[in-house]
Amino acid sequence: MLAVQVVDYGKPWEVVRTMEATEPPSPPAGQLKVKLLAAPIHPADLLLMRGLYGKRPSLPVGMGGEGVASVVDVGEGTDFKRGDRVIIPYGHDTWADHLTISAKRAVKVPAGIDDAQASMAMINPFTARLMLTDFVELAPGEFVIQNAANSGVGRAVIAIAKARGLRTVNVVRRPELIDELKAAGGDVVLVDGQDLPKRVAEATGNAPIRLGFEGVAGEAMRSLTGTVAEGGTLVVYAGMSAQPAVAFPPHLIFRDLTIRGFWLIKWFRSADPRLVAEIQHEMLPLIADGSIKVPVEHIYPLSSAREAISHAARAKGKILFTAS
Amino acid sequence: MLAVQVVDYGKPWEVVRTMEATEPPSPPAGQLKVKLLAAPIHPADLLLMRGLYGKRPSLPVGMGGEGVASVVDVGEGTDFKRGDRVIIPYGHDTWADHLTISAKRAVKVPAGIDDAQASMAMINPFTARLMLTDFVELAPGEFVIQNAANSGVGRAVIAIAKARGLRTVNVVRRPELIDELKAAGGDVVLVDGQDLPKRVAEATGNAPIRLGFEGVAGEAMRSLTGTVAEGGTLVVYAGMSAQPAVAFPPHLIFRDLTIRGFWLIKWFRSADPRLVAEIQHEMLPLIADGSIKVPVEHIYPLSSAREAISHAARAKGKILFTAS
Repeated sequence: MLAVQVVDYGKPWEVVRTMEATEPPSPPAGQLKVKLLAAPIHPADLLLMRGLYGKRPSLPVGMGGEGVASVVDVGEGTDFKRGDRVIIPYGHDTWADHLTISAKRAVKVPAGIDDAQASMAMINPFTARLMLTDFVELAPGEFVIQNAANSGVGRAVIAIAKARGLRTVNVVRRPELIDELKAAGGDVVLVDGQDLPKRVAEATGNAPIRLGFEGVAGEAMRSLTGTVAEGGTLVVYAGMSAQPAVAFPPHLIFRDLTIRGFWLIKWFRSADPRLVAEIQHEMLPLIADGSIKVPVEHIYPLSSAREAISHAARAKGKILFTAS
Repeated sequence: MLAVQVVDYGKPWEVVRTMEATEPPSPPAGQLKVKLLAAPIHPADLLLMRGLYGKRPSLPVGMGGEGVASVVDVGEGTDFKRGDRVIIPYGHDTWADHLTISAKRAVKVPAGIDDAQASMAMINPFTARLMLTDFVELAPGEFVIQNAANSGVGRAVIAIAKARGLRTVNVVRRPELIDELKAAGGDVVLVDGQDLPKRVAEATGNAPIRLGFEGVAGEAMRSLTGTVAEGGTLVVYAGMSAQPAVAFPPHLIFRDLTIRGFWLIKWFRSADPRLVAEIQHEMLPLIADGSIKVPVEHIYPLSSAREAISHAARAKGKILFTAS
C-alpha cells in the first residue's frame, strides 16, 4: 500500500514523498482494518513540514491529522461491518491507504454526509466547539467575536455558536464575504478596520463581548482586542497572517483582558475518549444539515503527494487525499 | 492651602496647575486631618494628564495616587496623635497641602523609614506583591521572570520575591545594571536579546518558569514570551516602550500560554481594607530594611507643579511633591 511521509524539514512540496508501506494484517479483536476515503491537508500539516509546528518529530514521519475511512475487515467483538464509514480516531497518520483502528474509538458516519465533509469532522469543528465552551461560560444570546471568520474554524464557530444559542460577530478582510457569511448564519459580519470597536458596538447594541477568537494575528489582532469587553478573553488558535500577535497594552491592563493560546493537539493528548465521542456526535448533525460545510477544491490520490501538497499551499478551497 | 490640578488633557507640564483650595476643617470622629510630607509623581500620572490612562475623569481634577502625611488634627475615637506619620489610604488626591482621611484605613509609618520611601509604599510594591501572589501559585524556590527589572515595580518584585522564598530572573536593556540588580537581590540578571530563552535556560538549569511580568511591550515582550514555560502566565502591567504588546503566536498556541493584564487601580476598587492593611504591613519591613528602595531625584513643593511635572517627564530617579 502507499503512504505519504515527510523525509526532511523544508518546503512542503519538496520534502513530501509517497512511499510503499506494509499493509496492515487482518485486525485483532476490537480493531478494524479500514481503507482511506478522504483526508484533508490542513495549514498545520504544511507548518509541520516546514518545521514550524508545535511538534517536530524525528524523520521520516507519517502525516495526516484526520480522515474518514471504509471498514474492509473487522476484528472479533466489534459492532462494525465491511463497508461502514468511520471517522478515523485521533492519533493516526491518516495519509495512508490502510490503517488499523480501535473499533471502540471509531464513530460511524451517517449516510447523509459525503466523504469529503466527513473527513473534516474533527480538527476545525472540535477547535471551534472547545473554544466556545472551555474558556468563558456564556449565557444564551451572548455574542462572541472572531476574525478569520471565513476560515474552516471560523465557519464552524458560526454554526456551532448558532446551535448553542449564541450569536456571532464575524470580522473579515474582504467585503465580498459579508453576504456569504450572513447566509452561513453569521449574525453580524464586519470588514476589519481602525474603527472596528465602534462598529461592533453599534451592530451589537453595545453588548459586552466576553469571548473572542483570534486566527490572524498582526494588526487584525490589535483591532479585535479593542472589541472585547472588560474582563474578557481572547483565544488565539492560529496566526494566519504570519505576523506576530499584537495587542495594545492599555487594552490588556486597563480592561483586564486575558489572552490564551489554544492547541487542539494538546487537548487531544489528555482528552477522555467518551468526551471526544460526545463532541463528534454533536458535530455530525451540523455537518449533515450543511451548517458546517467546507468548500473542497480538489481530491488527489496518495500517489500524487507532491502535486497535492503544492496545490494545498496555494488553494482557496480544501485539498484532500484519497486512497491510491 | 495649595493643591495640584489638571485643567485639560495634553502635555503634562502644560495642563497642570497649582490652585488655591479650601483647607479641610477640624476632622469629624474617626477621621484625621493630615499635612502632606511626600507624594511621588508616577508615569501613570503623566499618562492620565495626556488622556491616555485607564480613566479619563472630567476636568479640572485633583491628582496624586499615593503619599505619606503627618497628622495635624485628630477626630474623636482614633488611635493617632499629632505628628504621627501615616500612609494616605487609597482613593485620595494626594497632591494637596492638607487632606482629611479615615483613621481606620491610615497606617502608621515606622520611624526607620524616611518620608520619600514611605510615600511610595503602595503603588509599585502592591503591584509587585499582587502579581506574585494572585496569578500563579508558586512553590518556594521557583523562578519568576521579569523585564523592566530596574523599574520601581521591578525592584519591588526582586525584594518581595526574595522575602517569599522565590527566585527572580531579571531582564534589563543596559549591561551596566547587572551588578546593581544582583546587589539588590536579583538571582539572575540578563541583558535582553534574541537568544534570551537559551540564556535563561542555562542560567536557571532549565527550570520551568511559570510566571513572568511584562512592563516594556514591543520586542522585549516577544522575547520574554519565549522564556515562559508551557502552561505559564505572563502578566502585563505596563508598556514602557510605548510599543504594542507583541507575542509569537506559536508560543501562545503550542505552549498554552496565558497573557493577563493587571491594573492596581481596578484591584483597589474592590479590595478588602483588611487585606490592604495586611499587605501594607508586609511591605513596610522591606522598605525599612532597604530591600525596597527607590532612588529619589528631587522633591518640589506643590507651588512648583509645572517645574516638577516637567522634570518628572525626563527624570531617571523619582520626583516627589511635598507641602508648600
